[in-house]
Amino acid sequence: DPKLKVFTCNANPQLAQEIAEHIGLPLGNAKAIQFSDGECQIKLNESVRGCDVYVIQPTSAPVNENLMELLVMVDALKRASAKSINVVIPYYGYARQDRKARARDPITAKLVANLIETAGAHRIISMDLHATQIQGFFDIPVDHLLGVPILAKYFEEKGLEDICVVSPDHGGVTRARKLAERLGAPIAIIDKRRPEPNVAEVMNIVGNIEGKTAIIIDDIIDTAGTITLAASALVEAGARDVYACCTHPVLSGPAISRIENSNIKELIVTNTILLPEEKHIDKIKVLSVAPIIGEAIIRVHEELSVSKLFD
Amino acid sequence: DPKLKVFTCNANPQLAQEIAEHIGLPLGNAKAIQFSDGECQIKLNESVRGCDVYVIQPTSAPVNENLMELLVMVDALKRASAKSINVVIPYYGYARQDRKARARDPITAKLVANLIETAGAHRIISMDLHATQIQGFFDIPVDHLLGVPILAKYFEEKGLEDICVVSPDHGGVTRARKLAERLGAPIAIIDKRRPEPNVAEVMNIVGNIEGKTAIIIDDIIDTAGTITLAASALVEAGARDVYACCTHPVLSGPAISRIENSNIKELIVTNTILLPEEKHIDKIKVLSVAPIIGEAIIRVHEELSVSKLFD
Ligand SMILES: Nc1ncnc2c1ncn2[C@@H]1O[C@H](COP(=O)(O)O)[C@@H](O)[C@H]1O
Ligand SMILES: Nc1ncnc2c1ncn2[C@@H]1O[C@H](COP(=O)(O)O)[C@@H](O)[C@H]1O
Repeated sequence: DPKLKVFTCNANPQLAQEIAEHIGLPLGNAKAIQFSDGECQIKLNESVRGCDVYVIQPTSAPVNENLMELLVMVDALKRASAKSINVVIPYYGYARQDRKARARDPITAKLVANLIETAGAHRIISMDLHATQIQGFFDIPVDHLLGVPILAKYFEEKGLEDICVVSPDHGGVTRARKLAERLGAPIAIIDKRRPEPNVAEVMNIVGNIEGKTAIIIDDIIDTAGTITLAASALVEAGARDVYACCTHPVLSGPAISRIENSNIKELIVTNTILLPEEKHIDKIKVLSVAPIIGEAIIRVHEELSVSKLFD
Repeated sequence: DPKLKVFTCNANPQLAQEIAEHIGLPLGNAKAIQFSDGECQIKLNESVRGCDVYVIQPTSAPVNENLMELLVMVDALKRASAKSINVVIPYYGYARQDRKARARDPITAKLVANLIETAGAHRIISMDLHATQIQGFFDIPVDHLLGVPILAKYFEEKGLEDICVVSPDHGGVTRARKLAERLGAPIAIIDKRRPEPNVAEVMNIVGNIEGKTAIIIDDIIDTAGTITLAASALVEAGARDVYACCTHPVLSGPAISRIENSNIKELIVTNTILLPEEKHIDKIKVLSVAPIIGEAIIRVHEELSVSKLFD
């Protein structure tokens, strides 16, 4: 369809390229560059008049640069008369600021939703939003994709035996259960408790892990503190092997050295966030979300149900 | 008035401190810090319920960081029930992207105006907007302050003789005329022409500069290419001394070394943009806009005319 065009900025051009290839289109001719003073400049080098345009840009680090590039790109597309502007945000930054956890907190996940709508987006496609409530922060359609099927397929093909899927906290149980169902495995939950204020947290495992192959699943792994402590607790409780997986490898600060030095045998992540060269360690396996995002774009463009992708 | 509070983020805390002192208030207790992954976090450590709040944050480099800090701060203030949120942007970044200079350009100055309004600002106080049209990009009141009176006062006190004020291009003539009127001096204009494509520009001086003390005035000095070439042209045309001045010292890329090696005797700038240590060279003199911004805040808060500031 000549009216479908896919663009990218600088956050994850490799993923955008793969998605375009999946759809069978070249990437649109546009560039996000910087003026001498660091202001972002968008050069849209082809017409988008009357087109359904998809812009692929996770708002990963550097988050403010990537977000602003996206907003300026949407502004340029809007003023160039694109028919619809569909913003594909495989990783939605600021998602953890989704509520007033303390008095006078901002709700930055909602602010970002407002900014993207204000710039002129007509639809959002995102993946494993840290809080599904973020869909409700938008007044435009949000297609919400899941990483679990991709992760499940990898573990199925690996042929692991005696699996137990582990949620690192109570908030992640639904996600763990989805993976467990696909793998025909039981689940366990790590129950973090602080016995007294200013005393280190105790990791209590709810469920039987003895002799099992544990697979910890989370949506985001950031500094990797929780997941590496969980791995130790699982080994102590008798787990045979510990795997970990997540959709979004934020991996900031001490994350890589913690993972290197942990009991985790392999960490499986996806490419919603582009891993820089120095974070590509042997223990980390990257799976591509390009096929699922590519399919979602085709389905949205053909006005078919995206949820059918997960059957 | 206990209901007036002044806050700042990280772009120019020194200026904010000076402004607060001028008003006679301590700076509000708030901090803009970063999470491990680079996401910005605002900690608002005092109540703003029912207050008229002024947030001082130029959107200078790093522009996207500073803009996002400002937006998140406004979001936090809004949710904390501030009565009015007045955003003081001494230097308005992205102001040079104020029109479609080429096909399919974004209009980022307008996008930024929309983002600030969407976050929840009720009023803008800014200074020497690169294009005065930017006032019209907002649907909320904009108080527009001028740097010329501060610059004029400096030159008056210096007691220079036989002055000619020079506009470095046709777009800056109004500004040059304002300074010239205050100094009781004539003006000259530099008329840049490219005789043929791909041939260097010729700087033609309209006006008599022979034996005069030239003062070039611009709103922004960025890479300092124009201003240093203009200084050479003025010396060649017989100017005795060349001074330069601007409100906003962006000074990116080769600016500092160009100024060092130029015919400019002294460059007078203001502190709308915080100059980092390495840009504080002997030739550059920094004047403070804190008194004028402080006065403007007092006048706005007391519902008095801000334009009276320039009488
Ligand atoms: N980028 C971030 N890095 C670390 N913590 C964050 C970040 N953004 C928000 N938070 C905090 O994480 C908590 C929310 O995480 P969760 O309870 O997992 O939804 C809140 O206390 C937030 O203040
Ligand atoms: N941050 C920037 N640095 C350098 N040039 C810019 C910047 N932003 C916009 N421009 C360009 O500057 C021109 C507008 O400047 P002016 O004609 O002085 O208003 C346009 O061609 C813009 O593309």
